[in-house]
Order: sequence, then C-alpha cells, then structure tokens
Amino acid sequence: MNFCSHCGAAVSRLIPPGDNRERFVCDECGLVHYQNPNNVAGAILTWKDRVLMCKRAIEPQYGLWTLPAGFMENNESVHQAAARESIEEARAQPGHLSLFGVFSMPYISQVYLMFYGKLLSEQVSPGIESLEVGLFARNEIPWDQIAFPVVSHCLELFFEKGAHSERVHQARFNRLANREVEIYTEI
Amino acid sequence: MNFCSHCGAAVSRLIPPGDNRERFVCDECGLVHYQNPNNVAGAILTWKDRVLMCKRAIEPQYGLWTLPAGFMENNESVHQAAARESIEEARAQPGHLSLFGVFSMPYISQVYLMFYGKLLSEQVSPGIESLEVGLFARNEIPWDQIAFPVVSHCLELFFEKGAHSERVHQARFNRLANREVEIYTEI
Repeated sequence: MNFCSHCGAAVSRLIPPGDNRERFVCDECGLVHYQNPNNVAGAILTWKDRVLMCKRAIEPQYGLWTLPAGFMENNESVHQAAARESIEEARAQPGHLSLFGVFSMPYISQVYLMFYGKLLSEQVSPGIESLEVGLFARNEIPWDQIAFPVVSHCLELFFEKGAHSERVHQARFNRLANREVEIYTEI
Repeated sequence: MNFCSHCGAAVSRLIPPGDNRERFVCDECGLVHYQNPNNVAGAILTWKDRVLMCKRAIEPQYGLWTLPAGFMENNESVHQAAARESIEEARAQPGHLSLFGVFSMPYISQVYLMFYGKLLSEQVSPGIESLEVGLFARNEIPWDQIAFPVVSHCLELFFEKGAHSERVHQARFNRLANREVEIYTEI
C-alpha cells in the first residue's frame, strides 16, 4: 500500500493514537487503512461414498486438486459462500451444509471455514476456475496432487472421523522456513 | 474507494475479465481491489457462574455492555485473536478457548467467531477500549444495555445450552428496514 484509497495522498506506516500496532495512515486525510485476514469458505460434498474435487484452472497450484472453496464475498454468510463456491467451481448442487472445520493460517492471514454436505445430484461439471471435476472414493483421491495442506487435512479428517464428529474441527497451520506446514489441532 | 492504493490513479467500478461481480479496478495499473468480510473474534469467559463483560469506551455503542471481542488482525489465528481481545479489553487471563459459535452478519459483511473459556483469575480491569468491566451472574446481566444483537444471542445460548453443546452454534443475522435484527439458526 502506497497511497490513500480515499484521497490519493501518500500513506505512512505508523501506530495511530490509541492503537498498539502499525497501520497504513494517510499523510493528508489521516484515514487509517486496516488490513485484516480473509476468509475462505468451502465444502466437502459427497455423492454416496465419493467426494467432489476440482482440478484448479487458476494459479496458485494450477493443475492440482482441491475441494471447492474460495474467498468469501461481502454481503453473504459463510454458509452462502461455501454453497456459492461449490456452484461456481463445480456446477454442483449442494444440499444442507453444516460446519466441518475452522482452520487458521496466520502466515497468510487466512481463515478456512469448511462445511460438509451431500450433493443433491451426481451431475457436476467444471466451472471457469476448474479444469475438470470428479467424484472420488477414498482410495481414488489423488493424494499426491492436492493443491493445499488444508485440503489434505480436511479429507483425512473426513475419512478418519466421518462427517459429523462431536465438535467442529479446529486447527492452526504454521508454515516452516522449508515451506513445510505443521498443523496444531485445537481441542 | 476512489484511488488505487498501489499507484495512486483513479479506480473504476467494473467486472474484471473472468469475474462475475463488480470490483474497484485501477484505471492505470489494472490492479483489482477486492473487498471482503472481516472477522470479529471474541469470548465468553467465566469465573465460577459469572460471565466477563465490558462497558464500551468507544463508538459504536459507547457506554453499552459487550463481550470482549474485536477485529481479527493479520498473522494471528482465530483463537489467538479471541485471547488477545480478552486481554486488551479486560486485562483478563483466559484459559483454554473452545469455539462456541460462528455468526454471519452479511448486512455489515462481518463474521463473528466466538469462543468459550474459563478465566484463570478473577482479576480483571478495563483496557483502553472499556469504561469498566465486570463479572455478571445470569440474573445480573444488563440485558437492556447490551451493545450488539450477537452479544445478546451468545449470552442467551450460553445460559440456555451451556458452554459445550454438541455442535458449534451457527446463525445468520439479518437486519430489517426498521433496524431490528432477525436471527436464522443454522443446524
């Protein structure tokens, strides 16, 4: 951030009065530009014993497999965001969605809100952000071609613990210097 | 938003190629400025049968009572954000926090992530954003001076269903034209 999005003047990095951390603050109009984490909403959607996955047609991780998920938009709920992403990325018809997990990725300032639901139809097809989509049984999942650690984690939890474990899964992901990711489960 | 925070040129409202909704896009450098919901993280913290509440020293809702909660910052987890807000607003010492509820407020593009935990000490005192703080039993809660509908909803759920109901509470809040708020529980 170099300029104030309100008045166009330069911004400086400083701690505003009454605050306790540096923000971008406009040199002219004084507006404080807060920067906050983004939510990603997505879903584990099943048809019988198979899980819907999408092969990414966009960077990052072009060509790798993911669960339908994407940035939450303004003016929608987390449930609506997860349903929308399922429709946009896989032309899916999700049924009722229930919260499956909340996963924090502080190193990229993202929070994943993942849901579980049943598909109302087996008919799925790639949306504009997917190269292909498919329904995979546990032994068919392309485990070595998964786009993101959170996707592998969700699939492992789902197959090990089922769709409706007693608590919503919660974890904090930490990326190490070698880019490996550690997962700290919250209980 | 009037100007590009990257290059300082004017922005226009248009649908970028491959997108399906209007964004602010820079007329000069083409950068798309996405705007996304913000997370608020907070906590229901108890000492014996009493709940920690804070009287707000800031707008909006100056002088009304709330649970410790605030905007999540970059580079922290949702659990860390809830603990930090408890410390900042009430000088509290929260113990282990478990997810209590996820509440979407699409009309203000916010998601509340509320936790439950026990206080490790009865000692609490107002932080810079609080006029006073207190520990309230159910019949002492200032029900007619609560700052936000989500705070009333959390307290009602907590006193009716307890700290550890089977599922994390989930709801979507909707604000009507008369500014009343409807709550749709997700199950």
